[in-house]
Amino acid sequence: MSGGGLGRTETQRVVLFDEGDPLVLESGARLAPVEVAFETYGTLDEDRANAVFVCHALTGDAHAAGHHGDPARRGWWDRLIGPGRPIDTDRFFVVSPNLLGGCQGTTGPSSVNPATGRRHGLEFPMFSVRDLVTVHRRLLGFLGIERLHAAIGGSLGGMQALQWALDDPQAMRRCAAICASARLSAMNIAFSTVAREAILRDPGFQGGAYHDTGWGPNIGLAVARMMAHITYLSEESFARKFGRARRVEDAEPGLGPDFEVEHYLHHQGASFLARFDALTYLYLTRTMDYFTPFEEPGAADRLGGNPTSFLAVSFSSDWRFGAEHSEHLVGELQRGGCDARHVAVTSPWGHDSFLLDVPEYHEAVRAFLAGGEERRAAA
Amino acid sequence: MSGGGLGRTETQRVVLFDEGDPLVLESGARLAPVEVAFETYGTLDEDRANAVFVCHALTGDAHAAGHHGDPARRGWWDRLIGPGRPIDTDRFFVVSPNLLGGCQGTTGPSSVNPATGRRHGLEFPMFSVRDLVTVHRRLLGFLGIERLHAAIGGSLGGMQALQWALDDPQAMRRCAAICASARLSAMNIAFSTVAREAILRDPGFQGGAYHDTGWGPNIGLAVARMMAHITYLSEESFARKFGRARRVEDAEPGLGPDFEVEHYLHHQGASFLARFDALTYLYLTRTMDYFTPFEEPGAADRLGGNPTSFLAVSFSSDWRFGAEHSEHLVGELQRGGCDARHVAVTSPWGHDSFLLDVPEYHEAVRAFLAGGEERRAAA
Repeated sequence: MSGGGLGRTETQRVVLFDEGDPLVLESGARLAPVEVAFETYGTLDEDRANAVFVCHALTGDAHAAGHHGDPARRGWWDRLIGPGRPIDTDRFFVVSPNLLGGCQGTTGPSSVNPATGRRHGLEFPMFSVRDLVTVHRRLLGFLGIERLHAAIGGSLGGMQALQWALDDPQAMRRCAAICASARLSAMNIAFSTVAREAILRDPGFQGGAYHDTGWGPNIGLAVARMMAHITYLSEESFARKFGRARRVEDAEPGLGPDFEVEHYLHHQGASFLARFDALTYLYLTRTMDYFTPFEEPGAADRLGGNPTSFLAVSFSSDWRFGAEHSEHLVGELQRGGCDARHVAVTSPWGHDSFLLDVPEYHEAVRAFLAGGEERRAAA
Repeated sequence: MSGGGLGRTETQRVVLFDEGDPLVLESGARLAPVEVAFETYGTLDEDRANAVFVCHALTGDAHAAGHHGDPARRGWWDRLIGPGRPIDTDRFFVVSPNLLGGCQGTTGPSSVNPATGRRHGLEFPMFSVRDLVTVHRRLLGFLGIERLHAAIGGSLGGMQALQWALDDPQAMRRCAAICASARLSAMNIAFSTVAREAILRDPGFQGGAYHDTGWGPNIGLAVARMMAHITYLSEESFARKFGRARRVEDAEPGLGPDFEVEHYLHHQGASFLARFDALTYLYLTRTMDYFTPFEEPGAADRLGGNPTSFLAVSFSSDWRFGAEHSEHLVGELQRGGCDARHVAVTSPWGHDSFLLDVPEYHEAVRAFLAGGEERRAAA
């Protein structure tokens, strides 16, 4: 069904905003320079009409597909992107950047501010999903692409795709928001605030100036990650993966890790520290809390005539952004007269389903990106 | 429907085990002295047959009903216990102790070990739900009660009632386990392990010897409590209570608390520090993880002929110990030939429903404790 996947891929970097042409955020704040790390896969057609823009989720990066030298360690969406895969690199030119505010090559709060010679830290301005999209649009301009075939992303990635299509009706033919939300619930915000507090209250956080001190909010960030990781899975996936298995079946009961699920979460917390930054975690989670594109003044009016085709996919066991979030999102689009469809996929793997091999989901993405052409061919 | 409630109540203390007669734990470890804090409500009949034993949950205490001087601050189960209430103090003599390992008057890891003159700390032995019951049984002996009318508890409290009825078929006529579990799921354990890690990794924990240092794992305990508190509520209860309301509607976006749900959780974390001890939190959560009464060797055989009537109550929105936990518990009892019934109550308030005014639940408890008599009277 899918091809052999991409081979070696690499991350590029480009400065998209500089002192003479700073990034102007929705808040009015200005930021420069803004460098963006990105990867591309596949080939841009001569008419530059086959680009698919991939937006990553909270802890993703530009490395969505292929590998950087070790074929066993592949990009976070390698299951979806590649020759013959749902985001088919035989057909599409795929662009995948690290987000503004990120910590994997794109300018974020842990980047050095050239004006001061110090890392931005908590002086980094708050930014919105719209600001993430502003940077995406600049990257697209740099690549010489005027209109996308599609933008697609999961979770926070879906929010970016949605915001982009709402703000610029001509930006793309298709917009796919996978297990995304257009309005976090109180419980969503609750989990995020506890994660943030674990980081902010960690003495190692040092008011955000922890870099270069040999110390940092590692306890808080690991606890935040372990907790969040629970919310990405489901009762069923936990039961299937771990049940009540213990690492040492007849170990003495104690307070430290004993059950396999505990060892797994400890590993998740520890490995996260090696690849992620606490400030980025704070900023990006907060950006999600404030994302309410349909509640902006005039939002409903602006939907009329938007020619974009929208797809929302939800997963039955996702209790972070479950079906009700996609229903709300698609409902708002449909009420505004847009072409929008919600595919509710049955999957036991919770929110993380968007990263996994869930055939019904992969087929929905494949068919959506292929658009009407395949349907005509099949008729 | 319910009476005016109890007036002023008070906590008593009694030493139930001492050096000459130590508490022998299931592990073989010995512990002395063991002092127990408890309250009683109502009057013990002359035939001493009207006692109802109340077992508290993770963060409860002996003060289940009435008040200690401020009528606005009432015991944690005051809605259920009192004259005319489901656990009717006009009819029953109610006994409510603080658990072994607790921090509200009963000996626990933060108590001073007279052998060393220091607090037990992490040298406090691990204990089981069966050990909690061993102490309950001694308290009952002290009160001169041979057989209970009923034992009842919610969550960890229900586990104690269940263990007690399984270990001693003559101990009680009725056993009510409200939103309890006889086998925590991997996801249940996952939340508990993250809470414990937040405490254990907090530098203020100091290997458990934080008392009397002017410092403690306050960050970890507050984070643990905030996270656990989310799991006690439900999407719907969060939505109803808070929605997306902000404390200051046009505040500048920032990383600190802004939405009402954030302020609420912060308050929950802070107020918990004033009344609870981190070591007790570690030990009691761990005791729950290891509770699997039906998986002990010979457990199924021992069920035969147990004359106790069992009631399990679950709440539809409880995603901590939901209906599947009560179904499992009741299923095991029924397969063993016991009289056991599961009442699945519709309630939007999540796990915390067991503390709240949920009429169907209150009526189920009332009818169960009243037993056959009321049914005959109604016929």
